[in-house]
Amino acid sequence: MFFWGNLRFVFLLLSIRYDTKYKPKIQMKKILILGAGKSSIFLIEYLANTAQSKNREIIVADLSKEEALKRIKGLPQTRAVAFNSDDQENREKLIQTADVVISMLPAFLHPLIAKDCLQYGKHFFSASYESAEIRKMKTEIEQKELLFLNECGLDPGIDHMSAMQIIDREKKLGNEIFSFKSFTGGLLAPESEDNPWNYKFTWNPRNVVIAGQGVSRFIRNGKYKYIPYHMLFRRLEKISFDGIGEFEGYPNRDSLSYRKVYGLDNIPTILRGTLRRSGFCQSWDVFVQLGLTDDSFEMDLPSDFTQRMFINSFLPYHPEKTVETKIKELLPWVDENILKKIAWLGLLENKPLPKFKGSPASILQMILENKWELNPDDKDMIVMQHQFEIKSAGKKKRLTSSMVSIGENQNQTAMAKTVGLPLAIAVDLFLEGTIKTKGLMLPIHPEIYNPLLSELEKQGIKFTEKEELID
Amino acid sequence: MFFWGNLRFVFLLLSIRYDTKYKPKIQMKKILILGAGKSSIFLIEYLANTAQSKNREIIVADLSKEEALKRIKGLPQTRAVAFNSDDQENREKLIQTADVVISMLPAFLHPLIAKDCLQYGKHFFSASYESAEIRKMKTEIEQKELLFLNECGLDPGIDHMSAMQIIDREKKLGNEIFSFKSFTGGLLAPESEDNPWNYKFTWNPRNVVIAGQGVSRFIRNGKYKYIPYHMLFRRLEKISFDGIGEFEGYPNRDSLSYRKVYGLDNIPTILRGTLRRSGFCQSWDVFVQLGLTDDSFEMDLPSDFTQRMFINSFLPYHPEKTVETKIKELLPWVDENILKKIAWLGLLENKPLPKFKGSPASILQMILENKWELNPDDKDMIVMQHQFEIKSAGKKKRLTSSMVSIGENQNQTAMAKTVGLPLAIAVDLFLEGTIKTKGLMLPIHPEIYNPLLSELEKQGIKFTEKEELID
Repeated sequence: MFFWGNLRFVFLLLSIRYDTKYKPKIQMKKILILGAGKSSIFLIEYLANTAQSKNREIIVADLSKEEALKRIKGLPQTRAVAFNSDDQENREKLIQTADVVISMLPAFLHPLIAKDCLQYGKHFFSASYESAEIRKMKTEIEQKELLFLNECGLDPGIDHMSAMQIIDREKKLGNEIFSFKSFTGGLLAPESEDNPWNYKFTWNPRNVVIAGQGVSRFIRNGKYKYIPYHMLFRRLEKISFDGIGEFEGYPNRDSLSYRKVYGLDNIPTILRGTLRRSGFCQSWDVFVQLGLTDDSFEMDLPSDFTQRMFINSFLPYHPEKTVETKIKELLPWVDENILKKIAWLGLLENKPLPKFKGSPASILQMILENKWELNPDDKDMIVMQHQFEIKSAGKKKRLTSSMVSIGENQNQTAMAKTVGLPLAIAVDLFLEGTIKTKGLMLPIHPEIYNPLLSELEKQGIKFTEKEELID
Repeated sequence: MFFWGNLRFVFLLLSIRYDTKYKPKIQMKKILILGAGKSSIFLIEYLANTAQSKNREIIVADLSKEEALKRIKGLPQTRAVAFNSDDQENREKLIQTADVVISMLPAFLHPLIAKDCLQYGKHFFSASYESAEIRKMKTEIEQKELLFLNECGLDPGIDHMSAMQIIDREKKLGNEIFSFKSFTGGLLAPESEDNPWNYKFTWNPRNVVIAGQGVSRFIRNGKYKYIPYHMLFRRLEKISFDGIGEFEGYPNRDSLSYRKVYGLDNIPTILRGTLRRSGFCQSWDVFVQLGLTDDSFEMDLPSDFTQRMFINSFLPYHPEKTVETKIKELLPWVDENILKKIAWLGLLENKPLPKFKGSPASILQMILENKWELNPDDKDMIVMQHQFEIKSAGKKKRLTSSMVSIGENQNQTAMAKTVGLPLAIAVDLFLEGTIKTKGLMLPIHPEIYNPLLSELEKQGIKFTEKEELID
């Protein structure tokens, strides 16, 4: 402690001297962005747009300096650096140069970065879930008067903010929210839905293939509900969006814990879910039922194994029956339409597997990646819908708040926009002094979500509310 | 090494002096049995029966000295000691006194005990699976000319021996085994089947509740087959035993690895399975499908939660429909008979749960333990059946080898007998010099299985073979 205290003092003296000599009087703020992947595009652009006028520098750090350079091309006040999180010395040096650190790294690296930020007194922003490891730092974060803001992307992020704005507003009006359901989907824009699945990978394929594994939990009309993975894709709710049509939602992990986060401790119904295009889940369920999405063991298959043999290895043996017949017999709800979708993926063809070793999920993923790849002119789409049921002045109303964001192209995706902009805006508002709060935070406080949502709306990410009386 | 070498020499001198003074010339062999649970009953009795004539002492060690004392009551040449595997000094001292160590401890403790045996040059016997940790000791076991014999109980154990005896015999005759299926079940004797499930817990309830979790693997007619847990209890084979009727078998974990163990590397069909009484699996599948056997997460339920609410928490919400209706709608194969079995367990009653915290599997287990408890006069039963298909002199035959063992009472169970006797006999044959082999072994060699099976037969554990021509 003493050593670092002293060293920091020396750094302080050095930087004062440096600033006095070469720089304007108001100190330039340095924003360090770790990770220059696709999700960082809008984040970097948004911050760079005002960097000159706001006297800021944006340092974009990535394992690949080329990637970082590509990302800052043509943007003012930016600098690209190579960065390897394993290189402690380099990592700490870089973090020391910053005022604010935004981590777009894989979630498991956040505690490492957060620890550095804590040590060197830097503010920390991420779009990932607040982890137990980061929660342990809470007291120290407060003592050092830092802001560590997590879950400030899309989901988690925009979902929290847009829901909390309505929850707080309705509570202020004296109304009682007795049901809250919230659904989000990362999908394909309708104009790009040109295959039988109406689906392509618009984000991390692995997360899509293993989506929903574990047991999903929620509460409905006061009844606790638990759904094991193999039941998930048949326990669906229909959700519709004006102008873009019908979707289906399945419950997403532990909704129960959000009662506390949202200050709805005694609400009888709360459910968070994931959206897919109508019809997707029933077809996807074929893979779940057969075991093709299993990620718990490694297959080691002979090198002449075909895609048809792969799906057949999850079906009962029969000396004569075809794969198609056996699927239909084992899963009686499978019709010709579903079989056609499976056939379209090539799973009924006798062509060699793309790989022979790995979990069923990882083999299925490689097959899907070939088929569900975006075309150059494909666009993605983010859909989010909150459904509230509210008692208001003796009446009951249903309030629906929906957001649709369509990507511009394969790079300027809606996913990158809705994940990156909230982070960028949060950092801007914080450096501007609009967000003054410190400590370990989620964007569930009016001081954060009000200005942030209002700026998001200016950027085209906008919720539309509808109300109707019920009963 | 030098220190222990010396110390051992001192022990040797001391024991020679001791022996010369008070004992007959031939040194008394000391058999250390770790664990005095129910499974050790027959093991201890069998070895004690000849201990006097064969000049042996049997030291029974258990965490509870009372348990050990109870176990040796009235048996000659036995001694009970307290034993805590965590107490290294005591553990090593005890192992040093023995010539042969039989571990009946939980499997995870075997590497610890095996290491001690290796250090002090003691032979090691267990009824558990040969672990990767023990496999690492192979070279040293051989160098020290010790015998470490694992998988010498029932399953694994009797299954290996009885199968290998037939496999080696048929190979010697020049016959080709092209299909091998093997099923084992730990069940209730027919005379004790007095509840609608025809089932009670005759061994570790937890293992029964989570049985089959993971993905089961086997090969049939050259086709690899993988079955996820939620499909397991509908992928059944009918198995019948003369005189005791019909059973159903479901595939048990990784059958593929047994091709190598049994020297059947290119066999097109190999399957190991678990037996239940006919009709059991379809009813049990209700719990699997709903998620009641899930052991992956902790429930933390309100203290007014009833057994009916517990099962309802895995069913879809509906404002009016009953639990019974919802089960039938979600799982269309559920009939009145299955519902009656579920009702018999009390799961449709509004009585409080036996506990409110824990995984669904652990809560279900407590409910079942109350209902599936053995009566004082109930008997258990072990059933095992190997089914071979063999090409012999241009013809194809089906060879079935079956074993049924019925327990004497709640203590002298068939489970304790079939697990304990093979171990006891193996140790006896080894000390007598009939088994001369050394090294890390499974009981798959004629030198071991021939005399062992022949003695088992004298003890009433006997296989009956039937042959019929096929095609």
